[in-house]
Amino acid sequence: MINKEVYILKGAIMNTRFYNAKILTMAGNFSITEGELWVEGNRITYIGQSMNDNAIKLPNFDREIDVKGNLIMPGFKNAHTHSAMTFLRSYADDLPLLDWLNKQIFPMEAKINGEDMYHLSKLAILEYLTSGITANFDMYFCPEDVSQASIDMGFRTVLCAGINEFTGSTEENLNNLESWYQKFNHWNDLISYNLGFHGEYTAERPLLEGVAALSKKYKAPVFTHNSETRAEVEQCLRKNGTTPTTYLDQLGMFDYGGGGYHCVHMTEEDLAVFKKHNLTVVTNPGSNSKLASGIASIAKMLDMGINIAIGTDGPASNNALDMFREMYLVTVLQKLKEDDASAVPADQVLYMATVGGAKAMGLKDMDTLEAGKIADLIIIDLAQPNMQPINNITKNIVYSGSKQNVKLTMVNGKILYEDNQFYVGDDAENIYKKANEIINRLR
Amino acid sequence: MINKEVYILKGAIMNTRFYNAKILTMAGNFSITEGELWVEGNRITYIGQSMNDNAIKLPNFDREIDVKGNLIMPGFKNAHTHSAMTFLRSYADDLPLLDWLNKQIFPMEAKINGEDMYHLSKLAILEYLTSGITANFDMYFCPEDVSQASIDMGFRTVLCAGINEFTGSTEENLNNLESWYQKFNHWNDLISYNLGFHGEYTAERPLLEGVAALSKKYKAPVFTHNSETRAEVEQCLRKNGTTPTTYLDQLGMFDYGGGGYHCVHMTEEDLAVFKKHNLTVVTNPGSNSKLASGIASIAKMLDMGINIAIGTDGPASNNALDMFREMYLVTVLQKLKEDDASAVPADQVLYMATVGGAKAMGLKDMDTLEAGKIADLIIIDLAQPNMQPINNITKNIVYSGSKQNVKLTMVNGKILYEDNQFYVGDDAENIYKKANEIINRLR
Repeated sequence: MINKEVYILKGAIMNTRFYNAKILTMAGNFSITEGELWVEGNRITYIGQSMNDNAIKLPNFDREIDVKGNLIMPGFKNAHTHSAMTFLRSYADDLPLLDWLNKQIFPMEAKINGEDMYHLSKLAILEYLTSGITANFDMYFCPEDVSQASIDMGFRTVLCAGINEFTGSTEENLNNLESWYQKFNHWNDLISYNLGFHGEYTAERPLLEGVAALSKKYKAPVFTHNSETRAEVEQCLRKNGTTPTTYLDQLGMFDYGGGGYHCVHMTEEDLAVFKKHNLTVVTNPGSNSKLASGIASIAKMLDMGINIAIGTDGPASNNALDMFREMYLVTVLQKLKEDDASAVPADQVLYMATVGGAKAMGLKDMDTLEAGKIADLIIIDLAQPNMQPINNITKNIVYSGSKQNVKLTMVNGKILYEDNQFYVGDDAENIYKKANEIINRLR
Repeated sequence: MINKEVYILKGAIMNTRFYNAKILTMAGNFSITEGELWVEGNRITYIGQSMNDNAIKLPNFDREIDVKGNLIMPGFKNAHTHSAMTFLRSYADDLPLLDWLNKQIFPMEAKINGEDMYHLSKLAILEYLTSGITANFDMYFCPEDVSQASIDMGFRTVLCAGINEFTGSTEENLNNLESWYQKFNHWNDLISYNLGFHGEYTAERPLLEGVAALSKKYKAPVFTHNSETRAEVEQCLRKNGTTPTTYLDQLGMFDYGGGGYHCVHMTEEDLAVFKKHNLTVVTNPGSNSKLASGIASIAKMLDMGINIAIGTDGPASNNALDMFREMYLVTVLQKLKEDDASAVPADQVLYMATVGGAKAMGLKDMDTLEAGKIADLIIIDLAQPNMQPINNITKNIVYSGSKQNVKLTMVNGKILYEDNQFYVGDDAENIYKKANEIINRLR
């Protein structure tokens, strides 16, 4: 066994050998093997038994990491968030929903600019890295600034348009949407872009028809906030005579797939639409709990075979960007809702947080750990009291796991976080300073 | 400003100066001041403005710690747990409640001995320290072994008897209870003992009357599992014609105070009993969610002025021993239950997790930070992405906080945990090894 540890500049793309590891590939099952994993450039090139360097010629590794029996697994995919809202974290909590939104959030959001969003997104990315999140599905304004934050830090972002009646005329919105779709799908390896709009309740029919037409033109999926609150569904019923999901479906919005964020208040017919078009439900249990929106019917969706992904929602409404907390909430809220301690087992939750998210976000090569896939992976530290004894690692991750267990986060073959240190081309203290300056300026 | 950092053996009781700190004393309000805090021996001797060493003669400090603007606050009190059940963490999850209890938990519990409990309690204590917990209220067997684990690690434990019809005859149980009460209240500064029994549903009337008589004899409070599940309450109604709370009250069980663990299924009359006798509700939202027991009416109890404390319950049913997760659950589950995003504000939750717990556990000198009180305190690291920007620190702790933010845990004037390292007179790896050996032997 090679045991030299070659420390070179982290953050750079290089060839890395992880050995003496437990590996959860998530490729088809939840079994955990022991062995090693190689990364060459930004791709995984080998997963398997320990290699003796006398037996075969090993690649020229820049760094060889003794994983010490800890677990390598795919990075988590945060499948719904508004990263740049970090400035409003804990700014206005414990208020009734409408007061929170109308008196606190909207007026503050109106004051921030693209440069602010760049810095505020960077703050969110730091937090993602501490939670083992390797990609986010981000709906916010100023896609160029948000993208640049990810690119500069080496993080992976899938953008989703959030156009609505307040972001411009129908023509402006649709022109923006099409040009962003083209631009940000050819911008950088770390960035991709999905068609989307803020929600049925903030878009009139011409705008929605325009988005559906673009979906048809590009054969592209569409994502939106959907049925987050009871009031939203009731308003749509009054206005359109049907639920948001069926209304959008009638407009042809989901003919090429996509999905909905939240999906708390769904009818049987709504779920049938999701099933028919193979749409993803992105569940946000932390936000839905804190804002008293309700508990989505995840157990039922799972039974129906609907793809489920997990998102933190933005930091104004959660307030943490922590996939461990969200995973735990997904399952325990279902146990409460279904009055059944066996509802939504841990393995299923782990699938939603990794493969389910990657599927929604179009991250075909970043879902599981396999030779040929992109190296978006994390190491879970099992040598912590909350992971001991080693009875069942996947259940431990979901029921006991915490950010404290994230030992390393690698995105696109680069180590961006290791042993509580960031390697993101900027100093964390600088990013904190910027975020405080922004909120102090706006206050 | 003195800025030397004298590093001597941590874990020893010594004189420590914390300077350049934010301080949340919890003494009467939630305001945060800036300044310094001194610990001499095991007591806090000063909290206030920064002291210039030229102005007055400072005590002879063994260590001076630059807190760098982070937050000192009282340690969390884990007001209900069964620490030694660490061996069953993630051993049997996602099962219906009765299968879990009867087929998995009880048969395994029957196999462990006092030495096992010593090691398994130590594992739990490591986890408490990572979560900023400075004392636990522990109901389990073998009080001497459980106490010794705490004493050896420098941790504070309040024991609670868990006698029931399976732990001996009524006479044996009551003799044990009285002798333990006398012994463990004069054993060690770190240990105290409360009268208690497992639950109404595992005790016949003669045993309950015996406990009530001891409560009267010693003018001592009594604690027990109470109304955790609907089935438990229904069974008591069938058997005794009234709820567990009113039944126990009729026996005089609560004439000298005490309280109940869980208290999920409580009637108006039950709550009136709690109010009348100034009892504490120890809520366990993680366990109650995972086992699908239900959501306690915390918002209502709070409105009535009932003292509320927070417990993790044991690691078999939670599975983490993490006060941050419990605090978050306390408030968001109430927001869902009450359909009101303003239910149970963060400050109230922080009070339950510190002062409310100390009140229940009889820890009169370990509740708040004040000169003269015992130094059971923690430092919360604010220089982490989940705590930025600094909009509202107390809300941040409850809504975004995690174990990762615990920079230091001090119990009885000793630093037991600092910067991810334990100073507990034993190596964490040894404790993990013992726990794995125990479960592997029993499996």
